[in-house]
Amino acid sequence: MNKNPTMQEIANELKLSRLTVSSVINGNASKRGISAKTITVVEDYLNKRGYVPSMQARNLRLGERSTLGILYTGHLYSHLTEAFNRVISIQNANKESVEIMIVQQIDLLKGIQELRGRGVTRLIWIQTERPENLFKDIDKVLNFLAPLDSVIFYNYQFGDNQWVELFQNEKIHLVGIDRLDGFKNMGRFLKKIGHEKVGITGSANDGLGEIVKNAYTSIGLEPKFTNTKTKADTLDLTGKKIAKDILTLIKNEGVTAASFVDDEVAGHAMVELMKCGIKVPEELTITGYDGMSYASALRVPLTTLSIPVEDMVDHVFKLLNQKRIKKNNYSHVFKTKVIKRESHSKPNK
Amino acid sequence: MNKNPTMQEIANELKLSRLTVSSVINGNASKRGISAKTITVVEDYLNKRGYVPSMQARNLRLGERSTLGILYTGHLYSHLTEAFNRVISIQNANKESVEIMIVQQIDLLKGIQELRGRGVTRLIWIQTERPENLFKDIDKVLNFLAPLDSVIFYNYQFGDNQWVELFQNEKIHLVGIDRLDGFKNMGRFLKKIGHEKVGITGSANDGLGEIVKNAYTSIGLEPKFTNTKTKADTLDLTGKKIAKDILTLIKNEGVTAASFVDDEVAGHAMVELMKCGIKVPEELTITGYDGMSYASALRVPLTTLSIPVEDMVDHVFKLLNQKRIKKNNYSHVFKTKVIKRESHSKPNK
Repeated sequence: MNKNPTMQEIANELKLSRLTVSSVINGNASKRGISAKTITVVEDYLNKRGYVPSMQARNLRLGERSTLGILYTGHLYSHLTEAFNRVISIQNANKESVEIMIVQQIDLLKGIQELRGRGVTRLIWIQTERPENLFKDIDKVLNFLAPLDSVIFYNYQFGDNQWVELFQNEKIHLVGIDRLDGFKNMGRFLKKIGHEKVGITGSANDGLGEIVKNAYTSIGLEPKFTNTKTKADTLDLTGKKIAKDILTLIKNEGVTAASFVDDEVAGHAMVELMKCGIKVPEELTITGYDGMSYASALRVPLTTLSIPVEDMVDHVFKLLNQKRIKKNNYSHVFKTKVIKRESHSKPNK
Repeated sequence: MNKNPTMQEIANELKLSRLTVSSVINGNASKRGISAKTITVVEDYLNKRGYVPSMQARNLRLGERSTLGILYTGHLYSHLTEAFNRVISIQNANKESVEIMIVQQIDLLKGIQELRGRGVTRLIWIQTERPENLFKDIDKVLNFLAPLDSVIFYNYQFGDNQWVELFQNEKIHLVGIDRLDGFKNMGRFLKKIGHEKVGITGSANDGLGEIVKNAYTSIGLEPKFTNTKTKADTLDLTGKKIAKDILTLIKNEGVTAASFVDDEVAGHAMVELMKCGIKVPEELTITGYDGMSYASALRVPLTTLSIPVEDMVDHVFKLLNQKRIKKNNYSHVFKTKVIKRESHSKPNK
């Protein structure tokens, strides 16, 4: 007898009719007048054999269902792991059918097609890449999203408004924070305590750097970029490399603060800078981005920007049941908050 | 026309035969002598409409495939997030079909049944719970795992050997570390630098506490448990509560070291203890468990026990293709390593 017996094989083994076996498997046994004793015999056998009806069989039986899909592109990291955990746990509590796909950015379209093929009608799309790195095949992506009952793009990074109208037209919900606004928040805080020249990790020419530059210059700060090359490094090594470039910025440009886009990298850079004799925060203010839970236990408790993950994810589940009609608002912009700890102070002039 | 058109509807729309349309969809068009021009017309239309054949249709066409399943129970945390990311990225690179389910511990059996129903033949089961909390329905779980071509249980925590033989008999691979051995590692290190009385988070009566107790007493240390009640707290609050209990152990029991089972909690407790005036490491040695990448950037760089996640995950993919035969070795025990940083010193007597 094979590993996955057919109903006929089970019936033969138990000396019962195929109809009796299929009635138990399909949950119609009592309705069909099969005795409790026979039902128990069949059920015990199914459990002993580890029998599972195939998905095709169950789908044919259940007909069309509303299925939730979760599409995650890239790697789980920082606040997105928290969001993913929260999505999964709400979903588990809902006892609803769910299909999960995790694909590389380059396979975004394939991921959408696969989920559609599995019968997904409502989609939570958790996107790790910034929108400026997103779309080569945007038209095709939108075509394959159009037939779904609802689509929520989680972690949309507002700030450039290049794509917002496009998604509004396509009736795709965008849930995320406004990066420009977030960096302005942090910038205003730094300015208020007296900083002018602020070191920024990255380059003014990448998409994120441009936003930080716009945010900081718009409120009268002078951003100075580290231009650190950190491809494929660990976060520890990235932090160390950035620390060296910040030392240069302190010496050559007179920066009094360094603004990071990741809490862990901020932590590693902080350790390295302190090893090189820089006092934090007296000689250098350091700020993070993410609001990770370990940030308060770093070398110096990190002043950082928190992202309201719980509120955002809870909102996603409310949006899932909205109809895709034109007049809705599809942009859901959440506010960041500066968490003030001990890694900032007035500049030491 | 509905959102998910049938092949017949597409054919009507394009004024082509249903056979022509289905041939393009099924990839038989050139074989059937359909012109390149017509193929392009159909393909463009399918892309514009975002047409996806249903999974049932594709499965019927493709027949039986070998499908990898990933079953994750509970929440993604610490080194398991790293493992999950690595599994997904190897899987993505393999371009193989994969089914992912993430369920609560209580729905373990349902998760296995669902994956089986989806045609999964090889399973990576990433388990977040300790084995002593695992199994009410162990017999049933094993029955439903039996028909699979291979099953790898990732994060099996060796140390008690209650279940090892059972899994060996069931030909289920166990990949994990030996907790008893890990704590002995850490204990020997603490003893070597002169500690005798060591505070342990948790209780001697929970499964993990018992293992720590056995490990530490077997090498001549005296473990003293905090017995902290921390249900459903944040890691930050957990750390603070434990810190208070460790203060008591320092005062009443004379502990000179505190051994944690989680790096982040160790970090938060460390911050709180230092706030209460305890010098780390001079007055108290603190050790962690996990080897998280941020542990080197904590208040005092944390001496901890590292888990070889990369090696373990790479081994999982080798095991996936092994036949389930009795004579194989199904226990794959990986070694932990003490990472020596700055949170330990000789006791201050």
